[in-house]
Amino acid sequence: MRFGIFGGPAEEGPEPPGAGYRRFIDLSLEAEELGYDGVYVVEHHFGRRGQLSASLAFLAHLAALTSRIRLGTAVIVLPWHNPVLVAEQAATVDVLSGGRLDLGVGRGYQFPEFQGFQIPIEEAGARADEAMELIRKAWSSDGSISHHGRYWDFEQIYIEPRPLQSPHPPLWQGAGSPDSIRRVAREGYRLFLDQIGSFELTAERAAIYREEQRAAGLPASRDDIAVTRGLLVAASEGEREAAAARGERTVRRLAELAAEGAPPELRATRPFYSEPEAARRTTEESAILGTPAECIERLRRLEASGIDRVLFSNPRPEDMRLFASEGMPEFRAAAAPA
Amino acid sequence: MRFGIFGGPAEEGPEPPGAGYRRFIDLSLEAEELGYDGVYVVEHHFGRRGQLSASLAFLAHLAALTSRIRLGTAVIVLPWHNPVLVAEQAATVDVLSGGRLDLGVGRGYQFPEFQGFQIPIEEAGARADEAMELIRKAWSSDGSISHHGRYWDFEQIYIEPRPLQSPHPPLWQGAGSPDSIRRVAREGYRLFLDQIGSFELTAERAAIYREEQRAAGLPASRDDIAVTRGLLVAASEGEREAAAARGERTVRRLAELAAEGAPPELRATRPFYSEPEAARRTTEESAILGTPAECIERLRRLEASGIDRVLFSNPRPEDMRLFASEGMPEFRAAAAPA
Repeated sequence: MRFGIFGGPAEEGPEPPGAGYRRFIDLSLEAEELGYDGVYVVEHHFGRRGQLSASLAFLAHLAALTSRIRLGTAVIVLPWHNPVLVAEQAATVDVLSGGRLDLGVGRGYQFPEFQGFQIPIEEAGARADEAMELIRKAWSSDGSISHHGRYWDFEQIYIEPRPLQSPHPPLWQGAGSPDSIRRVAREGYRLFLDQIGSFELTAERAAIYREEQRAAGLPASRDDIAVTRGLLVAASEGEREAAAARGERTVRRLAELAAEGAPPELRATRPFYSEPEAARRTTEESAILGTPAECIERLRRLEASGIDRVLFSNPRPEDMRLFASEGMPEFRAAAAPA
Repeated sequence: MRFGIFGGPAEEGPEPPGAGYRRFIDLSLEAEELGYDGVYVVEHHFGRRGQLSASLAFLAHLAALTSRIRLGTAVIVLPWHNPVLVAEQAATVDVLSGGRLDLGVGRGYQFPEFQGFQIPIEEAGARADEAMELIRKAWSSDGSISHHGRYWDFEQIYIEPRPLQSPHPPLWQGAGSPDSIRRVAREGYRLFLDQIGSFELTAERAAIYREEQRAAGLPASRDDIAVTRGLLVAASEGEREAAAARGERTVRRLAELAAEGAPPELRATRPFYSEPEAARRTTEESAILGTPAECIERLRRLEASGIDRVLFSNPRPEDMRLFASEGMPEFRAAAAPA
């Protein structure tokens, strides 16, 4: 199994500009040192929480400070971007990192961000689809291409630099519903799974993805599913309650952020886990939680579902260190040649 | 006087992706070591010459590899970009570099690039103006702003991260005609002057800029004009002819690139210096050319015009080194406290 970190900068109270960025950079560099395999960053706008807005520029920076870990977007929200500029920035990061980019793309979901960009959230899917159609066409063509779509027009363009990975960086998408998972598989994307789906649901989702890959005659690899999880390591059983409470708070905050600013009809369409009890249950059912031994046991459940890549969502540095020393070696040993 | 480099990656014949990027990064790092003061990069698209398309991502990378030099765009071409994303990327580079960004902005001029983006070149000025109006408003406001313009709409947006430099990075624009220079001064931009204007013309342009600053009651600083120049150092008088011939070729190539793909009515509106004789005369009248002693004499002419910052356009590494050892100390000594 391989482990990465997922998330991005955020402010912790009033701070000078960049303090959260510095903290997340330090976390990423320590992750590489500790043997983690990748850093996957979000993209958010307008939230006044010091979040990461320019994710590919940030990864270009990390590319210079790291040498081994994968650098991923998780995800870049396509409806807000000119797809040609995304392809150029992504290829630039791929070149500057020596071919370490994992390009995760998505359609976005936070209403205030669409409102800010004045792009109808109803068009998110169609805009993302058109962007990827263009980007994949540009990267799979040796010459210039033109594109005349619903949202974008380009004439005789040639994307450069060319990505270092051939024909392009691995492409990832997040999905949750069976239909969307099947589509992601069919279209040849790798799959991000979320951090609040239970172990059982996550296993079902992975199975749907594999089944569709087989049905479509596409190659499968243990490397092409990554699941995000909370990491809540308790040094002892006595600290487990505090760790679970941290997870509960995180789930509730995620729920609140997702709902913020959305009109009632959009809020009502999905479960938000904002009640303490639901948030606690979600944590118990999904997180890598407990003593190192319990964390290992929980990861074995994912491994048994055919998942070999786990991303820890904005882990506390102390949890990241504790897992690296107490948990990671278990999986290293298993992965070594027999 | 302070010296920087100007330009960006380019392919030298068939090369693996990124070879030109690596070369320009090495040039930039050596420039910092040698005592140069800044790296200013262009932005170009679709040219199939391995040029720099994602200039702010590239500067985010350089920010991690350098500690002292200024990092500049010269320029980012606003009509092709969502202005909110430009402001976010620029602020990100400013944060990641510890406040070393110089943000040069422009309207673009190469016809095939506008054609590729399917943006009418006739709208370039209006689009650039609207973008800067928005970016300056966002950076000078503590709270959220809205914008409803001719080309862009945003509602209740808050640009983050905030830039590290307060209230924002220095803003630069290129200009050549008296009217455009006056406008740049009046609007509080620093001024980029081009690499082919003669020493006399460059002095006139600097004077117009200063005069307009005074007329508008704006503060002037010797730091707010940067002129780009060819650097063609001849180790001895015997090598001067070869150096001048290199300059001539560069001027002709610039002229050809500017004209490429443009319809005849646009080509006819400006002098292109594509004739060998005109290109040679331009080199003699504008470049930092000749033995170190002649280079110093030529720079003194710029200095006498009130220009303290000179950017060498894609210098050869050997010229950059030779000037650092033989020319730069002259100006260092002059700048030291008496």
